[in-house]
Amino acid sequence: MQKEEKSKDTTEELYKEALKRHKKYRGKLEVISKVPFKEYRDLGIYYTPGVAKASEVVSKDKEKVWELTNRYNYVAIVSDGTRVLGLGDIGPEAGLPVMEGKGFLFKALGGVDAFPIVLGTKNRDEIVKTVKYLQPGFGGVNLEDIESPKCFYVLEKLQDELEIPVWHDDAQGTALVTLGGLINALKVIGKKKEEVKIALLGAGAAGLTFVKFLKRYGFPTKNMILLDSHGPLYRGRGKNMNPWKKRYAKQTNPELLGKDLKGKPREKADKGLKLALEGADVLISASKPGDWLPGEYIEHMADEAIVFSEANPVPEITPPRAKKHGAKIVATGRSDWSNQINNVLGFPALFRGALDVAAKEINDEMVEAAGIALAEAMEQELSEEYILPKADEEEWAPREAAAVAEAAIKSGSARIKKSKDEVYEHTKELIAHHRKINKFIFNF
Amino acid sequence: MQKEEKSKDTTEELYKEALKRHKKYRGKLEVISKVPFKEYRDLGIYYTPGVAKASEVVSKDKEKVWELTNRYNYVAIVSDGTRVLGLGDIGPEAGLPVMEGKGFLFKALGGVDAFPIVLGTKNRDEIVKTVKYLQPGFGGVNLEDIESPKCFYVLEKLQDELEIPVWHDDAQGTALVTLGGLINALKVIGKKKEEVKIALLGAGAAGLTFVKFLKRYGFPTKNMILLDSHGPLYRGRGKNMNPWKKRYAKQTNPELLGKDLKGKPREKADKGLKLALEGADVLISASKPGDWLPGEYIEHMADEAIVFSEANPVPEITPPRAKKHGAKIVATGRSDWSNQINNVLGFPALFRGALDVAAKEINDEMVEAAGIALAEAMEQELSEEYILPKADEEEWAPREAAAVAEAAIKSGSARIKKSKDEVYEHTKELIAHHRKINKFIFNF
Repeated sequence: MQKEEKSKDTTEELYKEALKRHKKYRGKLEVISKVPFKEYRDLGIYYTPGVAKASEVVSKDKEKVWELTNRYNYVAIVSDGTRVLGLGDIGPEAGLPVMEGKGFLFKALGGVDAFPIVLGTKNRDEIVKTVKYLQPGFGGVNLEDIESPKCFYVLEKLQDELEIPVWHDDAQGTALVTLGGLINALKVIGKKKEEVKIALLGAGAAGLTFVKFLKRYGFPTKNMILLDSHGPLYRGRGKNMNPWKKRYAKQTNPELLGKDLKGKPREKADKGLKLALEGADVLISASKPGDWLPGEYIEHMADEAIVFSEANPVPEITPPRAKKHGAKIVATGRSDWSNQINNVLGFPALFRGALDVAAKEINDEMVEAAGIALAEAMEQELSEEYILPKADEEEWAPREAAAVAEAAIKSGSARIKKSKDEVYEHTKELIAHHRKINKFIFNF
Repeated sequence: MQKEEKSKDTTEELYKEALKRHKKYRGKLEVISKVPFKEYRDLGIYYTPGVAKASEVVSKDKEKVWELTNRYNYVAIVSDGTRVLGLGDIGPEAGLPVMEGKGFLFKALGGVDAFPIVLGTKNRDEIVKTVKYLQPGFGGVNLEDIESPKCFYVLEKLQDELEIPVWHDDAQGTALVTLGGLINALKVIGKKKEEVKIALLGAGAAGLTFVKFLKRYGFPTKNMILLDSHGPLYRGRGKNMNPWKKRYAKQTNPELLGKDLKGKPREKADKGLKLALEGADVLISASKPGDWLPGEYIEHMADEAIVFSEANPVPEITPPRAKKHGAKIVATGRSDWSNQINNVLGFPALFRGALDVAAKEINDEMVEAAGIALAEAMEQELSEEYILPKADEEEWAPREAAAVAEAAIKSGSARIKKSKDEVYEHTKELIAHHRKINKFIFNF
């Protein structure tokens, strides 16, 4: 691999530009009217006395709220700011720029009206209760940047108790896009899902959910090794575990690799990673950021190694360095290198599909359908540098939304039936609508 | 008074049109991007990796959230749906159309990005706690359609505990506009605030707050009689009281009118109202809707009587009937008659002024300044049919916002200093911005 990837901007340049624009525009979202305001009389239609009629109709049949309000398209982006990007527990205010960014993506790429809700509590039960209280006004909930394992607790509790989709983007969203990317990466190098050995670094929200969806799609868990900051997970490991880790420790790593390692956690983690990568076909990591992963470890992977290095804002190993050490296909969370494993390819279109059929939940069938649709929505020929659609391509979002809606109907989660074509067209229309407004406002 | 007021639409027509439009547009708000999305690279600026810089800056200095996000302009419209318009306790879902309507008005008339939050709890302490948790993402809170006296408890508790403005529109908002209208009504007929006798029907959120602001402005409480569903309030009345009623029962009705009335509550209320209106110069009512108030009672009021009949959706007495029975100036909450005492003249511009100087609260000085500015912002000569600006006039909102910002600075509630001119111009600009988008979307 001679040609090194070159990013168009350095991270520093992006940071500088980001700060400049955040200051200039003061945030990224605004709330506007989706009804025409032509004359004084309109006030008596959208507000008192006219609006009383809409309220009266809903008071007699609660389900009418889906037809007479925008609830069907409102999503709450909920965070307590305890695990914001790679910055850790920086609080709800500091999380707000990220949640606004998420809202921007929800609308631009999925036509979803998402609103940031950053909470002044870190208590898991208080978070659950608050979101429950918010339910009557929303069509869905996107949990974001909540630390692990609290995020699992909150997600599972809310999925149990609410009648609208609840989604944890750091877990499920990344898994969906990772699945799509891996399907195509294997196509490029011609290896089979039943045969590849996979090392998964990071057993937080993302890592554990990767295992779940890879398994579901047909990657055998016996070919996987999951690693955290104490080294490889294996059946019977006692330290630094939780119920979610235990679930997968039993299914993966049948040879109990790492059991005999000695030393402090950090040493065991390092040695374990080295061992797990020996001969591995795939590394998927969602651990700590900072370009720290030794290139030498990559050299010991199998031929035509696939490296998905997903830490943000700086991956565990950058594409140029991973390739220098022999990786064939490298993907990161970054938009400034090719092969971006970016959640933007997931949540906006996934929610679009779910909201269009007023889904009661987002189940595993829907997530998997989204990942597969993504892998199939490529607009050019697959290559080492093109295993996922780019966010600005036009086909992936409507195709993904349509696949999700179809899966929702088949799996019984949809309240409303719609054809794939209808959802496809509606998605295109909403995205175009927003694009048109944006062009008008900024005159480009 | 020969000429009867004719509304352009009957209520039934407005209801029909409202239902039609609610179905057609499915709600009234959408969340859009306020930043340009021109190219793929923008994603790395508004979202990862660029956005991490904005989060990092806020994590080091929380106050930067006001500069780098839209928090300064987000307002939560919070309701538990227990007292929606004149419909009563119809639940949060049925309240949503009203809250969306409110959001529409916030943006169209004040350039405020307001988002509906309808809560699945009626418990006052849970409401307080939930709003407290929501604080980190909002620049202000508008409480709406929460039943009395719970609304007072929630309002006072939140005003104590939050560092952003908390507003109860049914109470403070209506009071502000009522004050403005009454100032001008007295100018039209030439009576003095120190001398007029005022009967106030309804001792809920609105009625009690009327007394507070009328008193503040210089109407002597000794000239007022406050009435509820058990008749006149007076010092020492035992039944159907609460701490807020007691506060004003002591100051008003010095002759203890109604103390000797006998009978069931309803009879006492009826007799008391008749007595209180004898010779009264002003009736301000915010009680039950339905055009039920006997015209005969109006006949016994003083000459050139002023009747503010503010129940929604149908006033206690309609303007045509009140005038038939001798009232000189009649105002209602309705946009389809002249003299609309509508909250739309209050909250959007009031919040605009408060948000522009990042006020920590909305204090009484700011509310009073808003009411006075409203009375002074008339674009034509005052008359019996024109005691308040119409919502589609252009001067009142920027003038009101500027007066509120000035009062916030003077009273020490502002975090930022701005000149009246700056706030006036900014308000005009934001309203024009939204109008331009709305015209573009709907092509008119």
